[in-house]
Amino acid sequence: MVEQATALQTGGGPPGALSFYYGHPDPAAFPLAELRAAVDATWQRHFPTALLYGPEQGSPLLLDILCQKMRHDEGLKLSPEQVFIAAGASQGLDLICRLWARPGDAVLVEAPSYHEAIALLRDYPVRLAAVPLDDEGLIVDALAERLHALRAEGTPVAFLYTIPTFQNPSGVTMSAARRQALVTLAQTEKLWLVEDDVYRDLCYEGTVPPSLFELAGGQSVLRLGSFSKTLAPGLRLGWVLAEPPAIARLADSGLHRSAGGANPFTAYVVAEFCRAGHLEPHVARLVARYRARRDAMLEALAATMPPGVTWTRPRGGFFVWLTLPEPLTAREVLAAAEARGITFPPGEPFFAEGGGERHIRLPFSYVDTPDIFRGMDILGQAIRAVSR
Amino acid sequence: MVEQATALQTGGGPPGALSFYYGHPDPAAFPLAELRAAVDATWQRHFPTALLYGPEQGSPLLLDILCQKMRHDEGLKLSPEQVFIAAGASQGLDLICRLWARPGDAVLVEAPSYHEAIALLRDYPVRLAAVPLDDEGLIVDALAERLHALRAEGTPVAFLYTIPTFQNPSGVTMSAARRQALVTLAQTEKLWLVEDDVYRDLCYEGTVPPSLFELAGGQSVLRLGSFSKTLAPGLRLGWVLAEPPAIARLADSGLHRSAGGANPFTAYVVAEFCRAGHLEPHVARLVARYRARRDAMLEALAATMPPGVTWTRPRGGFFVWLTLPEPLTAREVLAAAEARGITFPPGEPFFAEGGGERHIRLPFSYVDTPDIFRGMDILGQAIRAVSR
Repeated sequence: MVEQATALQTGGGPPGALSFYYGHPDPAAFPLAELRAAVDATWQRHFPTALLYGPEQGSPLLLDILCQKMRHDEGLKLSPEQVFIAAGASQGLDLICRLWARPGDAVLVEAPSYHEAIALLRDYPVRLAAVPLDDEGLIVDALAERLHALRAEGTPVAFLYTIPTFQNPSGVTMSAARRQALVTLAQTEKLWLVEDDVYRDLCYEGTVPPSLFELAGGQSVLRLGSFSKTLAPGLRLGWVLAEPPAIARLADSGLHRSAGGANPFTAYVVAEFCRAGHLEPHVARLVARYRARRDAMLEALAATMPPGVTWTRPRGGFFVWLTLPEPLTAREVLAAAEARGITFPPGEPFFAEGGGERHIRLPFSYVDTPDIFRGMDILGQAIRAVSR
Repeated sequence: MVEQATALQTGGGPPGALSFYYGHPDPAAFPLAELRAAVDATWQRHFPTALLYGPEQGSPLLLDILCQKMRHDEGLKLSPEQVFIAAGASQGLDLICRLWARPGDAVLVEAPSYHEAIALLRDYPVRLAAVPLDDEGLIVDALAERLHALRAEGTPVAFLYTIPTFQNPSGVTMSAARRQALVTLAQTEKLWLVEDDVYRDLCYEGTVPPSLFELAGGQSVLRLGSFSKTLAPGLRLGWVLAEPPAIARLADSGLHRSAGGANPFTAYVVAEFCRAGHLEPHVARLVARYRARRDAMLEALAATMPPGVTWTRPRGGFFVWLTLPEPLTAREVLAAAEARGITFPPGEPFFAEGGGERHIRLPFSYVDTPDIFRGMDILGQAIRAVSR
């Protein structure tokens, strides 16, 4: 049992290793003063309400604030009936899998996809089916093929879990054309889409394409959002956007009928933080911070990687995805890297149906710039060492 | 969408109705000043840790404090490896059902049992099998019979969900002899027990028998606790006690691998509240408050109920359970009661396999004494009105 601050330093590798392990935000960027003011505002304005079991759908104040945020950021006109407060995007995905998937159903995921979402889905009696992506995101033709094959063999498909924007782990963003093709396919095939959209606010270059939720006019898409990447994961707050009957089903789940709404206390704290106007300037500061680190990582990779190594150029989010040339594997590079003082997750857990041996996920979010250069220099040495 | 404070007043009945609907604590008893001091202590001592993804098992400080609490209150010698922090007892039960039950399994529940736990379990592909209780709690012989019948027909049994202490909804406490018989049966039959123990601290008379967890030496029992009844539900914190491999399985769930530990921020707030020594005197005040209300409800019932109506005498917890004489039903009484200005939940949702038509659950926790007398007077009138 270790405090997370220590875990961040060790990251599963040898003691003292420089960790490129987690997909975490930078604790040094937490807006402590503004959050503390939001806690004070909560005490002044929302007691005892913030200490009660809240309405199952979530704090009404935060529902309204999320509607305003989506309208301001994306021009989305939402009503509160289209929003559900979750105890983080993970809890939202968990609840969706419980209510949308029946035993034996297939759940489609990207290859690669977020490894802990794969772990979460594996706790359910569903079968995971992986569909590859490329630099434009999920390959929609491959999805159609897999969907038809599953249905042809009599396997119902509960939903597709996709991370179209600044994907975890690949850093890839699904192109606007692919998004439209995916939504068209989903509507034709009556396939539910679960759109994990937790990195949308962290865009360092260009613009973010419209969400699948927006393109689908809100129909048959469950879009997950989170304050964990932009505000603080310890508050455990995220949300789901969906059509009103789907939101009503989430709120009427047995879990929420028993427990009430997700985290009433911290929901009011976050609502007051947003209401005071702190979110937008805070996100702007985060974007500047993380953009500099992304730039540093891309510069460091260009300077240190041996020939044959390739990597993605993310326009946002937390991750660069690196591919080793054959016959190298990430596990042998990891051993050499840990011997030299850095650690990272090798690629296999990101692939639900095998593969990933030559991939490495590299977060740049919580490592400062000098350590990014130092870490990539060590990674380059490790790759060269195992290449001999 | 309504604020919960309003919901408490309306309680699902007609606007302005006096509500005996929810199993909620009294918001007027929240220890606001002490909680606010605990928030301040959290800012001073646990930042940024309290805003990070915490360790999957939960905040180490709160794990230690729970070990101390069980040792002080019950003489239980626990190690932190036997404790898991959950986002409320409901989330603990939810995670247990996910990990312990396979599709098609039976889950045994008491008849009656907590209706929202029944709703929660029904979101899983399990079959609920109800076993009756009497004034000494779950009838262990009936449990043995049902267990054998299920297994004889080839249905695996995932676990028994039981609320042995100050049961919701019946107010009944399982006797020490029944507890021992239950634990013996469970060990012989290799049956997992999920012991919902959220009312243990709220004892108004006599002593609380040892928990099933204690009697079983911690083996094959998952015991749920909560700060929702004694501190504040809006903090969303509870815990699970179990043997270390079971705790490790909960912590290694995909949900917690993705989300980290349950509610790090409020976990530190609760830990600081407890560390400052506030919990014990606060619970003592709650016990005095709720004991007076229980006494008032029992006095009011004795004064107002027509012949033939019976009710339980809870030694703790939140609820009195009332039984109407045949041929009256709770639903016809409810209609007459709502016409006169009170509301309550009729009994059917508390029975997983039917029944409950003649039962009424009456919480005394969040209704003040004058309203308890007024409400029971109205209830007596309503019963008389439909008896004619």
